[in-house]
Amino acid sequence: MNSRRHRAPSAPGEAPPAPGDTIAALATAAGPAGIAVVRISGSGAWAVAARVVAPRSGGEAFAGNAGRCRHVRLHDPLTAEVLDDGVMLVFRAPRSYTGEDVVELQGHGGGVAARRLLEAVLAAGARLAEPGEFTRRAFLNGRLDLTQAEAVLDLIQARTDRAAQAARARLDGRLGADIHRLYDSLTAICADIEALLDFSEDDVPEGFMEETARRLGLLLEAVRARVATWHAGHLLREGALVVISGRPNAGKSSLLNALLGCDRAIVSEIPGTTRDAIEESISLDGIPVRLVDTAGLRKTDCAIEAEGVARAGTLVARADLNLHLLDGSRPLDAEDHRHLEALSPARTLLVLGKADLPPRIAPAALPSWACVPVSARTGKGLEDLRRTLGERLGVDQAAPMGSEISTRHRRELEQAADAIAASVDLLAGPPDGLVLAALRLREAALALGRITGRVWSEELLDAVFSRFCVGK
Amino acid sequence: MNSRRHRAPSAPGEAPPAPGDTIAALATAAGPAGIAVVRISGSGAWAVAARVVAPRSGGEAFAGNAGRCRHVRLHDPLTAEVLDDGVMLVFRAPRSYTGEDVVELQGHGGGVAARRLLEAVLAAGARLAEPGEFTRRAFLNGRLDLTQAEAVLDLIQARTDRAAQAARARLDGRLGADIHRLYDSLTAICADIEALLDFSEDDVPEGFMEETARRLGLLLEAVRARVATWHAGHLLREGALVVISGRPNAGKSSLLNALLGCDRAIVSEIPGTTRDAIEESISLDGIPVRLVDTAGLRKTDCAIEAEGVARAGTLVARADLNLHLLDGSRPLDAEDHRHLEALSPARTLLVLGKADLPPRIAPAALPSWACVPVSARTGKGLEDLRRTLGERLGVDQAAPMGSEISTRHRRELEQAADAIAASVDLLAGPPDGLVLAALRLREAALALGRITGRVWSEELLDAVFSRFCVGK
Repeated sequence: MNSRRHRAPSAPGEAPPAPGDTIAALATAAGPAGIAVVRISGSGAWAVAARVVAPRSGGEAFAGNAGRCRHVRLHDPLTAEVLDDGVMLVFRAPRSYTGEDVVELQGHGGGVAARRLLEAVLAAGARLAEPGEFTRRAFLNGRLDLTQAEAVLDLIQARTDRAAQAARARLDGRLGADIHRLYDSLTAICADIEALLDFSEDDVPEGFMEETARRLGLLLEAVRARVATWHAGHLLREGALVVISGRPNAGKSSLLNALLGCDRAIVSEIPGTTRDAIEESISLDGIPVRLVDTAGLRKTDCAIEAEGVARAGTLVARADLNLHLLDGSRPLDAEDHRHLEALSPARTLLVLGKADLPPRIAPAALPSWACVPVSARTGKGLEDLRRTLGERLGVDQAAPMGSEISTRHRRELEQAADAIAASVDLLAGPPDGLVLAALRLREAALALGRITGRVWSEELLDAVFSRFCVGK
Repeated sequence: MNSRRHRAPSAPGEAPPAPGDTIAALATAAGPAGIAVVRISGSGAWAVAARVVAPRSGGEAFAGNAGRCRHVRLHDPLTAEVLDDGVMLVFRAPRSYTGEDVVELQGHGGGVAARRLLEAVLAAGARLAEPGEFTRRAFLNGRLDLTQAEAVLDLIQARTDRAAQAARARLDGRLGADIHRLYDSLTAICADIEALLDFSEDDVPEGFMEETARRLGLLLEAVRARVATWHAGHLLREGALVVISGRPNAGKSSLLNALLGCDRAIVSEIPGTTRDAIEESISLDGIPVRLVDTAGLRKTDCAIEAEGVARAGTLVARADLNLHLLDGSRPLDAEDHRHLEALSPARTLLVLGKADLPPRIAPAALPSWACVPVSARTGKGLEDLRRTLGERLGVDQAAPMGSEISTRHRRELEQAADAIAASVDLLAGPPDGLVLAALRLREAALALGRITGRVWSEELLDAVFSRFCVGK
């Protein structure tokens, strides 16, 4: 089985990847900046670059430039118009990001200047890269596995230091190596079973079934332990969605501003000021938290505002946690109780606002709810709110970083766990279950292999890399 | 005078610039992207980089890397935490952008990852660069003149191809060379006058005053011709501000969308939907045009909407051109006439909207106004509107590119022109006017010198470079 480790036998995606045509894209973010970089990769990268840089020289002259950075003048290859002065970096396959010949052209930043350089490179014969196509080629050329490719995306999209640290650790391949070990254990058991399939039932060694079931049980436990890391990974990658709800003028925008520590939302005295949901991000113990302020919950005659109120309801339903704001300086009335009935205590934190005024709502009167008195004006209770928020979201400060699985990984791990559990059941049954158990274990191996990309298909790569931006 | 050409004698800024301490900044735009670049410049650039890249090596080892790009692992110099894998580019003074030793560190893009890399570089001993400080150093080290430095900014901020082309042409130094020629002519005349100052009035050669006045007259004409290029430069750099005004529900948002060719503004049937001014940019014959849709002009009881209406009035006053929209399918009423009275026909284009319906406003009834019937629904008249708009803004398609002056240049040119004109008058007066004329011409030379930076002061550089972004 070991000879097959880099691509599972019956998997799709057997055909070797077509030799890469030459692709190009802007590799830096759009916007005014000193530098923009256009990256070119593929067998024709040097030839394409040669048509854009001056002094004009054939692609063969680039070999001497590999590993060098050169000041160059950048031209439009069709009109010979000078576009920019810049720097050229030449990388020779396989010592490049993609594993192919790569040229990076640095010009001035800014939307138009960068676009013109990219258009010149495309006119010189490159094709605009698909989202994630550079990293996809790096994967296909064995420069990184799928968990590392996904870590690249996580690193780029990280919204807090902790999320970046975790992504960086995954980029080193810790998660991939971990999954590889599970895969190897599984395929070793698989091989032992398959070795017996050609023999008669009577030839199965004494205790083999029990021993195999025991090994599979341990493996199943290990797979399930990996599944449990999903929540931490989810919080780091996607962040938590926290929705602030409450009646108009309860001070939702002020609470958002207080949590942000700056004035983002327009605060006014007129109820219904916030029509659109306002979203801001804070870092809570290193976890990115998306805070969404919603339109106040009330009946309204204004069609536009009504849509805002309707959207608020949808947001509350989707939230990881709902901060429901009550005016703590006034007793609860019938409408407050009606709103509370629509909320789930398990997913709601009640904020008793205006805590700088004499309290008129006793937390004891709301026994099934977690309550935090807060004054957005004085800042009283804010630290308490942040701490309670972190606890309720399940932020685990002590968790080791670098092995957090993603939702895609969880799906594959759960599929593997189901298949392993089924095979354990089959081993406990009649002896002819061995064949079926081997098939289920093969399924489990495929699922584990898809996590790292040992097993892959075009569909799998499309799903993984379509989440990338163009230029990565 | 020629020996003094690179800095005018009595100018401020005589002291040589202090040798550059080591500065660093993010040189690429913020945002998720494949690549982010941190640029380090200064005498300690190599030493700073050596503390961040691994394998750790002294600054002296960087000499061998000048002109090379190396794959490196990037560390936090304090905690030794691995931050990223990237590429290092080493440039040796004076063959770098700033003319100093420069290191560029390429890491993964994305806000947090790029910030962490920058923080590591700052922890390693660099100072965060001021806005434009890299280009300021390039100027101080003689890598480019001030018009070229300003062209860098124009190129980065260019919003249309034509603006980028013009900026690129200025980057080649055409404008600077042009101003240098004027400066040289002026200082040559100045030197001729100054040569006579030590002699008695009787020793002034026959016809000298007339010949000098003639030479100054030609020069004055040339200076004034440069002033005339300001409008084209202004349109390319700042773009034109076109404000769409009109009564609520006249179809302003629909007109904006039609001009944009896409749905940017929220269009609704409810009058007063647009509270905030919505700004979008289009390219009109290569000129960036900022189109601003305003809140409808009407009396309103809603405080928020009233503020929007008030802001609309301010915008109309500031606009290069005002597109005032009338409903062409209804006769003008008293309120329409009241609005027209507040507008200037010279700076207004009347758009007779809903031109797909039978027209009820005859352009002949509005003799002092330019009228264009347009239907945002069918697109009828839109091309006509774009053409008329271009004409009214004074877009000159045939103008050569690369010498367009900026508002700062115009101020200096006008000051030079005033001083030259005054000296011509002095030459026509009594002979002792020669001394005063020489002084005025020296003033004019200083003004011209400040355009290219032959003459500079810290205040001048602060004014020029504060407009740059950090990292350029």
